[in-house]
Amino acid sequence: MKNNISKFAPKGGLPELPNINGIKMSAVNANISKEKKLDLLLVQASKNSVITGLFTQSETCSPAVDWGRQNVKKEQNTKKDIGILVNSGNANVFTGSEGHRTVNESIKSVAKNLNTVPENIFVASTGVIGKVLDSKQITSKIKPLTKNLKPDGFTGAAEAIMTTDTYPKGVHTEFTVDDTKVKINGIAKGSGMIAPNLATMLVFIFSDIAIKKNILQKIVCRCNDASFNCITVDSDTSTSDTLLVVATGKAGISKIRSLKDPRAIKFQKYLAKTMMDLAHLVIKDGEGITKFIKVVVEGTENDSAAFQIAKSIADSPLVKTAFAGEDPNWGRVVMAIGKAGVRIDKQMISIFFGDYIVAKNGSISEHYNESLVSDYMKNDSLIIKVTLGLGNGKASIFTCDLTHDYISINADYRS
Amino acid sequence: MKNNISKFAPKGGLPELPNINGIKMSAVNANISKEKKLDLLLVQASKNSVITGLFTQSETCSPAVDWGRQNVKKEQNTKKDIGILVNSGNANVFTGSEGHRTVNESIKSVAKNLNTVPENIFVASTGVIGKVLDSKQITSKIKPLTKNLKPDGFTGAAEAIMTTDTYPKGVHTEFTVDDTKVKINGIAKGSGMIAPNLATMLVFIFSDIAIKKNILQKIVCRCNDASFNCITVDSDTSTSDTLLVVATGKAGISKIRSLKDPRAIKFQKYLAKTMMDLAHLVIKDGEGITKFIKVVVEGTENDSAAFQIAKSIADSPLVKTAFAGEDPNWGRVVMAIGKAGVRIDKQMISIFFGDYIVAKNGSISEHYNESLVSDYMKNDSLIIKVTLGLGNGKASIFTCDLTHDYISINADYRS
Repeated sequence: MKNNISKFAPKGGLPELPNINGIKMSAVNANISKEKKLDLLLVQASKNSVITGLFTQSETCSPAVDWGRQNVKKEQNTKKDIGILVNSGNANVFTGSEGHRTVNESIKSVAKNLNTVPENIFVASTGVIGKVLDSKQITSKIKPLTKNLKPDGFTGAAEAIMTTDTYPKGVHTEFTVDDTKVKINGIAKGSGMIAPNLATMLVFIFSDIAIKKNILQKIVCRCNDASFNCITVDSDTSTSDTLLVVATGKAGISKIRSLKDPRAIKFQKYLAKTMMDLAHLVIKDGEGITKFIKVVVEGTENDSAAFQIAKSIADSPLVKTAFAGEDPNWGRVVMAIGKAGVRIDKQMISIFFGDYIVAKNGSISEHYNESLVSDYMKNDSLIIKVTLGLGNGKASIFTCDLTHDYISINADYRS
Repeated sequence: MKNNISKFAPKGGLPELPNINGIKMSAVNANISKEKKLDLLLVQASKNSVITGLFTQSETCSPAVDWGRQNVKKEQNTKKDIGILVNSGNANVFTGSEGHRTVNESIKSVAKNLNTVPENIFVASTGVIGKVLDSKQITSKIKPLTKNLKPDGFTGAAEAIMTTDTYPKGVHTEFTVDDTKVKINGIAKGSGMIAPNLATMLVFIFSDIAIKKNILQKIVCRCNDASFNCITVDSDTSTSDTLLVVATGKAGISKIRSLKDPRAIKFQKYLAKTMMDLAHLVIKDGEGITKFIKVVVEGTENDSAAFQIAKSIADSPLVKTAFAGEDPNWGRVVMAIGKAGVRIDKQMISIFFGDYIVAKNGSISEHYNESLVSDYMKNDSLIIKVTLGLGNGKASIFTCDLTHDYISINADYRS
């Protein structure tokens, strides 16, 4: 089925994603997806690029993730190109030895066509689980994909990685270091099976910054904790989540070699924004979304306790359905706080819906005005804040509501 | 809104729940529930009865649960009656000091009217969270309730505790020990916010068996692990879950004083069946249910690992929506196994839908026949089995699917 475009889709469509020096792309329809769309993407990053990434923690992850998780720890051969191959429509998960063979042959084929080495190749697949992905369907396309590699392929790339997404997701930002412009482009796909750790997503980010691999890795981890690890659509964690970040080093600055380098700090700031913007785009295309919700928890003994409570609220079907019904049913927030498995003092709980105080010190606030809060619930974007009064711990999670459309989309996805 | 009666409702309605010697009940409409129905229940258990129970582990539990959790640890005064007061329509949760006062005054009033002591009184409330429950609404009804106490009140009792339940839930069983008949009656209410530990429920079980309190407590815990702790509707844990078991000792047998007493073993067998039957009745009235699903996990290193994986499958929105769509999307079962947080070997996973093998040793089975399994998915009751091949651990969880009706019920519940 074809889903309606999310009302949160950016009004202007996909923003312009300018070329990144050192990056070329091409995409093709390889008949992997059920729909007639671009579904196979090849990215080439020129030699001297570095690549890092993060992967799902699922125990039933795809062979592509198995490969990537190991491969990303190694140093790539900087005298050779890096290649990334992505398909949508088939996740190649739980496909046994055939699945592994498809990954291996894809890697071999890309390495050969790009004249590089297997350890420079990463692959990612998203879509249906459990269906064998024929390696020939992939490998037969590598040659034409290689021929068509172009610097301005980001738009096609954003489309090629979509599955149930209702709009392509891309972000561009730029900033200057040493009086030189540095660019970052990111593309992502959602939009169900979204939960930390790593939401169910493919995310690919490209920059022309010059940076050492291990410094890039540390910066990506920090940015991820505050972005993709803080979103949840439905608490289900994908088998295929993959985030790859490539830095080509072609901006024209000298290489960043330390986290303390002020340029590293500046880069982290802009990468964090890129990743947060992409994470929001993913939630805003959450399956069946009608409300974009930020859950803020403050005043726990530590940040991880706050995160646990925020996640319990954000994942609760009863909280999410109340939001879908524009019902300020804050009692369900109380319930979700209670089941989070974190020791609290219920007499200290306060709850805010937007700027409205709803509950204070363990009971309904004397200032609570149901009709005002009911009006607030009609907004597209909502903020729920819980304070616990026990310490300085805090966390924010972004999520969406649980609607009839989520059911429709997921009861009919495969058949 | 009024929900349609679940198609899993017992065909004959509530079974006959015969009198239990030593138990009297009465129920009344106290205008607590939005609907015109019985919503306040008083139970009297004659002197020499023992009572034990289990309560939600929620950190935001009701003051009734606070009281019960402490009180159940004490020995009650066996020279006096035991009283249980239950209301539906208002959970009296997160109502601060007023909520506590309502509980205290209810206890005082029941104790006075039954001519007993506060430590012999238990209270339970279910319904909307966060709304103050006026103590006078309760206490003004205790006198008429006491006057109307009758041995044959189980039918009214089963109705009085309902909220969004679409049918009253009761079970009766009897067996003989020492050539004497022993009876067990149980009543329960569901039907959202259902998840271990203790599903969201009120459960009250009454027997005329003669048994020491600490022996009864141990037997109830054992039975609970295999029944109410093994069901989940929506992963949301209530603030109010309460299970109370009363033994009046009036069957005419001598008191059971040891777990090794063969009569204790026999009683445990029948109590386990009572609790399992009630747990199934709760799931079969899960909000919006169209499928009754048993998830079996075997071959983990220990039982708790199996439980964790079974719960991950049973709680997964993507698995539950696939069942709602009668889609044998076993890939989502793979996903849910992977996100359970239990170390497994994905090459060892096998998955069965009913008697059909779907996946074996980490990939699709050569015997998988999609059209046969699709036909199987049309059944009302489904069994999903996962084997991991790593040990002798096993667990079963009962759940239901996630449907449009769940959304409708919960997006409109309060308003």
